[in-house]
Amino acid sequence: MTDTNIQLTSTINEDNTLTLALQHIDMPQPGADEVIIRIEAAPLNPSDLGVLFSAADMSTATQSGTQENPIITADVPVQAMPSLKTRVGKATPVGNEGAGTVVAAGSSPAAQALMGKTVAVIGGGTYRQYHCANVQSCLPLKEGTTAKQGASSFVNPLTALTMVATMRAEGHKAIIHAAAASNLGQMLNRVCIADGVDLINIVRKPEQEKLLRDMGAKYVVNSSSDSFLADLTAAIIETGATIAFDPIGGGQLTSDILNCMEVAAARDMKEHTIYGSDTFKQVYIYGALNRGPITLNRDFGFAWAVNGFLLFNALGKLGTETVVAMRKRVAEEITTTFASHYTHEVSLAEALQLQSIAGYSKQATGEKYLITPQK
Amino acid sequence: MTDTNIQLTSTINEDNTLTLALQHIDMPQPGADEVIIRIEAAPLNPSDLGVLFSAADMSTATQSGTQENPIITADVPVQAMPSLKTRVGKATPVGNEGAGTVVAAGSSPAAQALMGKTVAVIGGGTYRQYHCANVQSCLPLKEGTTAKQGASSFVNPLTALTMVATMRAEGHKAIIHAAAASNLGQMLNRVCIADGVDLINIVRKPEQEKLLRDMGAKYVVNSSSDSFLADLTAAIIETGATIAFDPIGGGQLTSDILNCMEVAAARDMKEHTIYGSDTFKQVYIYGALNRGPITLNRDFGFAWAVNGFLLFNALGKLGTETVVAMRKRVAEEITTTFASHYTHEVSLAEALQLQSIAGYSKQATGEKYLITPQK
Repeated sequence: MTDTNIQLTSTINEDNTLTLALQHIDMPQPGADEVIIRIEAAPLNPSDLGVLFSAADMSTATQSGTQENPIITADVPVQAMPSLKTRVGKATPVGNEGAGTVVAAGSSPAAQALMGKTVAVIGGGTYRQYHCANVQSCLPLKEGTTAKQGASSFVNPLTALTMVATMRAEGHKAIIHAAAASNLGQMLNRVCIADGVDLINIVRKPEQEKLLRDMGAKYVVNSSSDSFLADLTAAIIETGATIAFDPIGGGQLTSDILNCMEVAAARDMKEHTIYGSDTFKQVYIYGALNRGPITLNRDFGFAWAVNGFLLFNALGKLGTETVVAMRKRVAEEITTTFASHYTHEVSLAEALQLQSIAGYSKQATGEKYLITPQK
Repeated sequence: MTDTNIQLTSTINEDNTLTLALQHIDMPQPGADEVIIRIEAAPLNPSDLGVLFSAADMSTATQSGTQENPIITADVPVQAMPSLKTRVGKATPVGNEGAGTVVAAGSSPAAQALMGKTVAVIGGGTYRQYHCANVQSCLPLKEGTTAKQGASSFVNPLTALTMVATMRAEGHKAIIHAAAASNLGQMLNRVCIADGVDLINIVRKPEQEKLLRDMGAKYVVNSSSDSFLADLTAAIIETGATIAFDPIGGGQLTSDILNCMEVAAARDMKEHTIYGSDTFKQVYIYGALNRGPITLNRDFGFAWAVNGFLLFNALGKLGTETVVAMRKRVAEEITTTFASHYTHEVSLAEALQLQSIAGYSKQATGEKYLITPQK
């Protein structure tokens, strides 16, 4: 075990700028219930970009420093600064999950049991070479699973499973998913096929439609199509879907989904009522791919809800037992149901090249970056 | 008891028009558990206007017929017709509640017990002279309470009580109410003062601010004021309000409320997080005073919900025992806590004068119409 430990950090500065840089840090020492993981792979999820870029305008980003120690600087709009005051001057570590090998372990039996194992880990700061984590935050991977295969064992897999569990817990019988060709969307599609749950996939492009159909998706509708609303309504009538998960938020999609659900619910109503149908319609917004305003054109009565959706809050509602079972299933099926696909692998330094940033900041469906801190 | 019975009806016609007219109907015969109420007073609530006007453009309304039998005709936008198909050609009765004297009763002891009593009644079609209702839909008023005093015993009183009960059931500790100078708003203000619940009243005009303060309201903020957001945030910090009820819907108020709640919740956060505070923020939209789009400018993290709110669904969630207790309290306090104030009294025929329609269709705070079908 070396003495070098490097991490990627994001800092908001008093002069209304953001700095991204690598930082040499101490090699961590594990507490009794902790292990040190040599991080070999960590995904760049949309949720990481929020920490990484914060409120900075990345179109103003410039690169300085060296090839091995790049420094990215970007402007932060002055009106965003008040809400960031707790971040000013602090080099914030980035990375919500990853995987690697346990190279040191605390004294507890649980920690010792992980020594030498390949584990996935959840918790802030995985874009570093050596990461200290509580054993509770670790998921031991099956013999033969690589760190790259296990790097995305938490955020996407638990989100997909939580969507299905939330659907069941709240009494719905089929799911609508927007931006459905994403890694998460493909995973949800596999979970729903495996579990016999009807899933309506909303995509924007014909090739995404084909991708999902080739993966066995039965319901795929294209929001760029002229017949989108009719197609979505038809799929809702067929499946009875009354819950949707939308990572976009901004714009009218949430409203369109609620209106199509209402058209489906109201079509058999014998009496017209100004309150709309009794059918409860739910949209969870779990991301902010579009940070613009959410516009709700209310033509869907009064039996509806739009909620923000945060994985950890939703897991909390489902309870420990459910979550333990989910984690077990993820470890079992990480190379099948929960497999992730990456189009780019970058080192910590490469992650701070303007070209890489231009790539992963697009959050384009079909492009996904993996950071390999040991490279 | 006379043989004449007149009711006010609303009809959507195949030629894309709406007709409002009086209709002679049979005197109803009570079933075993039913009573016949001579309706002496029935309020015009915002929820009645939806049934009355449906989707018609009332700016096109014309009046014909006679003084005693006026007929109002208005255009219905052609694009609204498909959603109204179940109403076409049917003379729909109007009026969700009212009060009067029981003049005939069915054979059951419960029905017989109401004979001669002054009762309030809930259920469609109270804009008529004689109304048949199940005893379950009747609330016997206290000795000495007049029908006019008891006409609004259900919609507004139960809505106010349900708001407070929902606040408690969902773990919030203070309420924000928009359009708070309305009859309902004044009632909610009295309930909250009586029950020791902090209420933040949002109004639009200085005179409404004064009205509520004169009634003992502690927190009143004016959304037309330049300092509105700061004032609302300050009141939220003081009260800890995390639930709001908004009858407007369209526009940005819901979004403003959520953002102010988030500013209040986030002010003590030691660490900045892109997900916002953990504090769950709820807005219920219970009306559609503004039918335009609801615009949510998300700067309030992910712990939030915006729901449609319908009294009868909310009562269903609270359970029978709670509702029975609420009705009892309303009957006890109908001339105090739950007193309504009307600015205009009109007969059934007068309700169909263009001048009256121009008055009550404004839904202006401070103006409220009472229909007196025996006049």
